[in-house]
Amino acid sequence: MTNEEMQIVLDQMGKKAKRAAIALAVLPDDAKRGCLEAMAAAIEADAAAIKSANAADVKLAVENGLSPAMVDRLTLTDARITAMADGMRTVAAQSDPVGKVISRTVRPNGLEISKVSVPFGVIGIIYESRPNVTADAAGICIKAGNAVILRGGKEAFNSNMAIAGTLNRAAVSCGLPDGVVQLIPWVGHEAVKLMLKMDNYIDLVIPRGGERLIRAVVADATMPVLKHYKGVCHLYLDGGYDIAQALDIVVNAKCQRPGVCNALETLLVDRSIAAEFLPRFASVMKEQGVEVRGDETVRKYCAGAVAATEDDYYAEYLDLTLAVRVVDGVDEAISHINTYGSRHSDGILSFNDTNITAFTAMVDSSTVYVNASTRFTDGGEFGMGAEIGISTDKLHARGPMGADELTTYKYIVRGSGQCRK
Amino acid sequence: MTNEEMQIVLDQMGKKAKRAAIALAVLPDDAKRGCLEAMAAAIEADAAAIKSANAADVKLAVENGLSPAMVDRLTLTDARITAMADGMRTVAAQSDPVGKVISRTVRPNGLEISKVSVPFGVIGIIYESRPNVTADAAGICIKAGNAVILRGGKEAFNSNMAIAGTLNRAAVSCGLPDGVVQLIPWVGHEAVKLMLKMDNYIDLVIPRGGERLIRAVVADATMPVLKHYKGVCHLYLDGGYDIAQALDIVVNAKCQRPGVCNALETLLVDRSIAAEFLPRFASVMKEQGVEVRGDETVRKYCAGAVAATEDDYYAEYLDLTLAVRVVDGVDEAISHINTYGSRHSDGILSFNDTNITAFTAMVDSSTVYVNASTRFTDGGEFGMGAEIGISTDKLHARGPMGADELTTYKYIVRGSGQCRK
Repeated sequence: MTNEEMQIVLDQMGKKAKRAAIALAVLPDDAKRGCLEAMAAAIEADAAAIKSANAADVKLAVENGLSPAMVDRLTLTDARITAMADGMRTVAAQSDPVGKVISRTVRPNGLEISKVSVPFGVIGIIYESRPNVTADAAGICIKAGNAVILRGGKEAFNSNMAIAGTLNRAAVSCGLPDGVVQLIPWVGHEAVKLMLKMDNYIDLVIPRGGERLIRAVVADATMPVLKHYKGVCHLYLDGGYDIAQALDIVVNAKCQRPGVCNALETLLVDRSIAAEFLPRFASVMKEQGVEVRGDETVRKYCAGAVAATEDDYYAEYLDLTLAVRVVDGVDEAISHINTYGSRHSDGILSFNDTNITAFTAMVDSSTVYVNASTRFTDGGEFGMGAEIGISTDKLHARGPMGADELTTYKYIVRGSGQCRK
Repeated sequence: MTNEEMQIVLDQMGKKAKRAAIALAVLPDDAKRGCLEAMAAAIEADAAAIKSANAADVKLAVENGLSPAMVDRLTLTDARITAMADGMRTVAAQSDPVGKVISRTVRPNGLEISKVSVPFGVIGIIYESRPNVTADAAGICIKAGNAVILRGGKEAFNSNMAIAGTLNRAAVSCGLPDGVVQLIPWVGHEAVKLMLKMDNYIDLVIPRGGERLIRAVVADATMPVLKHYKGVCHLYLDGGYDIAQALDIVVNAKCQRPGVCNALETLLVDRSIAAEFLPRFASVMKEQGVEVRGDETVRKYCAGAVAATEDDYYAEYLDLTLAVRVVDGVDEAISHINTYGSRHSDGILSFNDTNITAFTAMVDSSTVYVNASTRFTDGGEFGMGAEIGISTDKLHARGPMGADELTTYKYIVRGSGQCRK
C-alpha cells in the first residue's frame, strides 16, 4: 500500500475519531460507565476470538525466535483477558474527570467566568508489545471523554486488532458513533510517521515504551506529546539517619522490582555516615545479588564494589546494579541529582528538617520523597485508579497520570450583552 | 562569530540561568516582590541610558525605511518607560503562584502525598518588535519563580540589551545570582536555532508574535512550546435573540480593535432571523466601514456585500472585514466553528437554553461566550493580572495565561520508612 493510499484511510480514521470524540465529550458519566461496562463484557464474550488472534501472534513470535520473556508478555491467557475486563470495570467506576468546575469568578462587569475540565478530543497512543495495553489505554481515555487511535507493537498486531474491534463494536452497540476505538491497521513504520502528522485530528500523543520509541515519536510528532523518558532515581542518605531503616528502604527501592522506572539506580551517602553505613550496606547488597559501582570512598568500605565511571551516574540499569557515591552534605546531593537524574523520583532519608526542606524545594523531580522508597511513584499507589503512564515532562502533567490528566479545560463566559470598553 | 563560539556563550548563559532559577525557586514571595520593585526602580533610574539605546534603534529603523507604525511601536517615550516600571510593580503585588498546595492526601500506608505548584525553571521568550515586552515578560516569569532567556526582535536590539541589563543588575543587587534576566546577544537567525536546541537548560519556550514566527519556533524547538497561533473568532446569532443587542455586540467584537486576536472574524446567522437581522446589520456595517463577505443569502439581504470564498472562512483578517454565513441552526454553527475556527474565542447570542448548552459543550475553543463580545479574552479582563499570552494549545494552558500558568507542580511524598509491598 502506498503512503497516499494509507493517508486516505488515516484521514477517514481521523474524521471518525473526531466525530466519536464530540459524542463522547457530551456523554453523561452514567452513560460512559455503561459503555465501559459493555466493553468489559464484550472482551469476555469475545475471549475465544481474541485468544485465537493472539495464538497467531504467539506462533509468529516463536517462529521468529523471540525470547521466552517476550513471548510470555505477548500471550493472552484467560486470566489476563479477565484482568483486562476487570480493569475496564475499575476505570468505569472511577469519578468523572470531565465537567469539574476548576474555578468560577464573577467580574465587576457581571461576566461569569467558569474554568471547566473537558476532554482533549482524540488521543493517540503508541505502545510496544503487551496487547492488554490496547484495552487499558482505551478505557482510561474513554473515561476522560476522549476517542483513541491506537498503534500497538507489530508482534501483537492480530491480538490488538481483535481487542480494538471488540471495544469499538461495544461502543457502537451503546449508541456511540463508529470510531471511539481504532487501531492503525498496518505494522510498518511509515504508518506511524503519517499518524504523527495528523495534528488536525489527533490532539495529543502518548508514547509508551522504551526511550528509543519515545525519542522517535517526539522527533516526528507535530501534535503535543506527553512523554516519559526514563527513571534514574536516587536516594540520598543523610547523616544521622537510622541505618537499619535506610537498608530496608534501599533494598526495597533497588531490589523489589529492579526492571521498573521507579526503581533506585543511584545511592548518595553523606560522608558523615559513610564509614558506619557502607560496610553493612555492602553485605546486604551481596546477599541480594546487587553489583555495587562506587567512587573511591565507597570502594574502601564496600568489599567487592567496582569503580563507577561518569556514565554509571547517568545509567538507568533496570537491573541488580547500583551506583553509589559519597557526597559532602545535602547540597552536593541535590546538585548531583539535578545534574545526572531524569526528574522522575528521588528521595532523602533524613531526620534533619533543614536538609529535608532544602531537598524537597530544590530537587527538580516529578516526585520527591522523604523517608520512603521511590517505588511508590505509580497511579495506583497515589490513589488515582488506573494510570496511563508517568510523565517526566513539566508541561501539563508531571508524575503519575490518571484520567484527570487526560483532560484539558475551557473557559465558559456567560454575559447579558457585555461589550468591552 | 561561528556557531561553535556562539554555542559556548549560550552554554554559559544556560548555566547561569539554571543557577538563578534554583535561587528564584526557593525565594519567599516578599523577597520576589522586593526584587521586582527594585527592577521597576532601576528601569526608572536608568531611563536616560535606555532612551539613548532606543534612539540608536529608532535611527536605524528610520534609515532602513520601516513604516511609521513600526517606528512608533519601537519608540520608548518617558510615558512608556514609566508604564514598564508600573507594570513590574503591578506584577510584584500579585499573589504568589508558587507553593500552592493543589491537593494533599494521606494514603492507607501513612504516606502523605502533596501536589505543590513550583516554577518551571528557565523560560525562553521569543518576541518581535516592541521593547517593552522585555520588561513585561521578564516580570511575570520572575513572579512565577523562573529565570528568563529572552530573544527580542532585531529592530529593538539595543533597547532590549539596555533593559535586560538593567533588570539583571537590579536582581543581582537584591542578592540573586547573575542570570535572572539574560538576552541573546546576537540578532542573526542562527542564534535562535541554537537557543531552541538548549532543552538541557530551557524548560519551556513561549513565542510571541505572528504565525510565521510561531511556526518556525515549533518546528525548531526541542523543548516544550506554549503557543498562540491565531484568533479566527466567531459569533453565532441564534433565532429569537434581541437584534439591537446583537448589533451592539457584533460592532464591539469586530470594530473596537480589529487588529487583535480576540476580534470577530466570522458571523454566523441562524436562517430564522436572517431576513430581519441582515438588512439592519448591513447598514450598521456600512456606517462602521466594515466590508462584508457573505454567502448567497447574506448578499441577498446585505447591500454591498461581496461573495465569500472558502478561504474567507479560514481568514484572520485583523482588519475591518467580516465573513458572514447563514446557517441552519446551532448544530451547523458548531460544526462550522470546529471546522474553520482556531480554537480561540467563539460565542453564541441566544435566549434558548438548549442551544446555549449544546454550543458551550461542543464548541472546542479555549473560551466560549454566551451573550457577550469575544473581546474579553484577555488576562486583565479575566482578573489574572499581567498576561504572557493567550494559548490556543490544549496542553497545560488554554486561553489567557498569567503567572499561574508559568508554574508546574511536583509531588512531595512524606513517609516514615515505608517500603512497597
